[in-house]
Amino acid sequence: MGFFSAICPVTFDKPLFCSILGNTLLSTVPGISGAGPTPEKTLLTPILDAELITFGTIKSQPIKPNTPTGCPTPATITRAMMELTGLHPVFINSGLQNQPTVPCIDAYGNVGEDPRFRDAVPHARNLFRQGELIGNFLSAYSDLLVLGECVPGGTTTALCVLRALNYDAAVSSSFTNNPVTKKDEICRLALKRISDDEVSLPLDIIRYTGDPMMPVAAGIARTYAGNIILAGGTQMLAVSAVIKAIGGSLPNIVTTTYVRDDPTANVVHLAKQIGIGISYVDPGFGDIGHIGLARYCIGEVKEGMGAGGAMCLAYLLGYSPEAIRSKILTTVNTYS
Amino acid sequence: MGFFSAICPVTFDKPLFCSILGNTLLSTVPGISGAGPTPEKTLLTPILDAELITFGTIKSQPIKPNTPTGCPTPATITRAMMELTGLHPVFINSGLQNQPTVPCIDAYGNVGEDPRFRDAVPHARNLFRQGELIGNFLSAYSDLLVLGECVPGGTTTALCVLRALNYDAAVSSSFTNNPVTKKDEICRLALKRISDDEVSLPLDIIRYTGDPMMPVAAGIARTYAGNIILAGGTQMLAVSAVIKAIGGSLPNIVTTTYVRDDPTANVVHLAKQIGIGISYVDPGFGDIGHIGLARYCIGEVKEGMGAGGAMCLAYLLGYSPEAIRSKILTTVNTYS
Repeated sequence: MGFFSAICPVTFDKPLFCSILGNTLLSTVPGISGAGPTPEKTLLTPILDAELITFGTIKSQPIKPNTPTGCPTPATITRAMMELTGLHPVFINSGLQNQPTVPCIDAYGNVGEDPRFRDAVPHARNLFRQGELIGNFLSAYSDLLVLGECVPGGTTTALCVLRALNYDAAVSSSFTNNPVTKKDEICRLALKRISDDEVSLPLDIIRYTGDPMMPVAAGIARTYAGNIILAGGTQMLAVSAVIKAIGGSLPNIVTTTYVRDDPTANVVHLAKQIGIGISYVDPGFGDIGHIGLARYCIGEVKEGMGAGGAMCLAYLLGYSPEAIRSKILTTVNTYS
Repeated sequence: MGFFSAICPVTFDKPLFCSILGNTLLSTVPGISGAGPTPEKTLLTPILDAELITFGTIKSQPIKPNTPTGCPTPATITRAMMELTGLHPVFINSGLQNQPTVPCIDAYGNVGEDPRFRDAVPHARNLFRQGELIGNFLSAYSDLLVLGECVPGGTTTALCVLRALNYDAAVSSSFTNNPVTKKDEICRLALKRISDDEVSLPLDIIRYTGDPMMPVAAGIARTYAGNIILAGGTQMLAVSAVIKAIGGSLPNIVTTTYVRDDPTANVVHLAKQIGIGISYVDPGFGDIGHIGLARYCIGEVKEGMGAGGAMCLAYLLGYSPEAIRSKILTTVNTYS
């Protein structure tokens, strides 16, 4: 394939890029999330990423937007695409531990709890309704919504929700070495609570074992009038599975080839099981000229903050793969 | 005059109605604010008003959107205009005591403190910058911004800010009997703090004695690319005075004739002093056929939640005064 795996027939006048920020306390379990320098600090990542995309720099903390191994965060890619296209991104706060430093559309949810021990999203139904209101509102001002997310630890909640919905799921990771055993163990305990209580309704499954991003995303998908592209990997597959279980019409997913090619996940298979269309962006980071970006190709980071969808949107707006790659490289180099 | 006092030369394609919600603890001082059944409950009014405008009914509490004397709240008028025009309003949370029940763009401010005893808006500069970001964002999706507010107790903070900026100010009230003496006494104590500390910069004056709505509104006005109509009475005159003191270009104000005709305020004189254009909507509630609305004419409620601006916007969109009045009456009657 070339830069983009599909010829996308979407027509639009007023595109909107939006990212849902959220936390799950699962990201503080050591070894689960690579989206932060320490397990505790993963809770801050959505806020720092939103700051980076808004200002082009992280102001509230003296850190660079790189992983400990020098890999630029996916928010850097999203920032580059917003600069290239001149789009103004919208952030939605679905439930965070800390207060964001930039304005967000707030759904007034809470941080997701650890699903091994208690309900993860007690107010899932309310968050779904808040998502519906946000979807209505966004419909009035746009006709294409590229909807990303930033939820450290969210591949584990995605795994729990997908399996609870009876999918034969294996999910991706921002780590090169996907902590599959740890995730499976968490999932086993969460699913036990679900089967003990005979829970089967999709929003109840989110209540038991999801994260706050999920009901907000599903609510938006329910009411948004234009076309939606869900921008992300396994987490957006979990959202899609919920949308399908609710009986909603399925949007499309766009993610990176780095997620597709994760041998520990089964993205292509899952999309097929759910019956959702999925396309892939290949930004060719292997030969882009930056050692940190090249690490995406060996399985680090892979995707996040709607980076795949942001690149896809730039492409749909007519920017060439060369212009997109060049802008990403320039942006990344300003931080190095 | 007829329905609208001015021929408005504004041209636009994508209008946006927006209201900034905020609290000041001054509204809990007995006798200061009529925007709630008790002083303590005035803190909830912005949240209930936003709910009313969003759903057409207040769901979270078993109450009707009327004052204790049976006067429909101005949010009812704003709701009627949103229904009539099909516009989707945006709420901005500048700083509230309680969590809103509908999604808001959140600037992550705090409730305003009592300016007699301590800084009212310690992070006024940060809220101004948040307002600038929100103004940038709204510019991308609209070309006319009608910007209202809902801050119970806000005429008192407006009085303090206007006088601190050396205007010969008298402000309006949602009470028929404006508690002028109480407001003057609060103002005297707040201004003493300001003069003791030799404070003169406009954002410092907000810090000492304003409310969180003010810096957010001024920040939005600073960056919004299209035309702005500030929808409100003396509170928006205070915002205008701040915008002028900062050196920004002045927007226009639209309010109701009920605010203009308040003999205890000096709206026309203040607008002239500031040098801002101000227009008035006269919805003729005296003969509309509802005893509660008629009480607006004897000086109750008068304005709020951008109601004057919402009626003006409906008018600019081509709805006749008859259609506007009829929609308001129908809406109000559904609650009675």
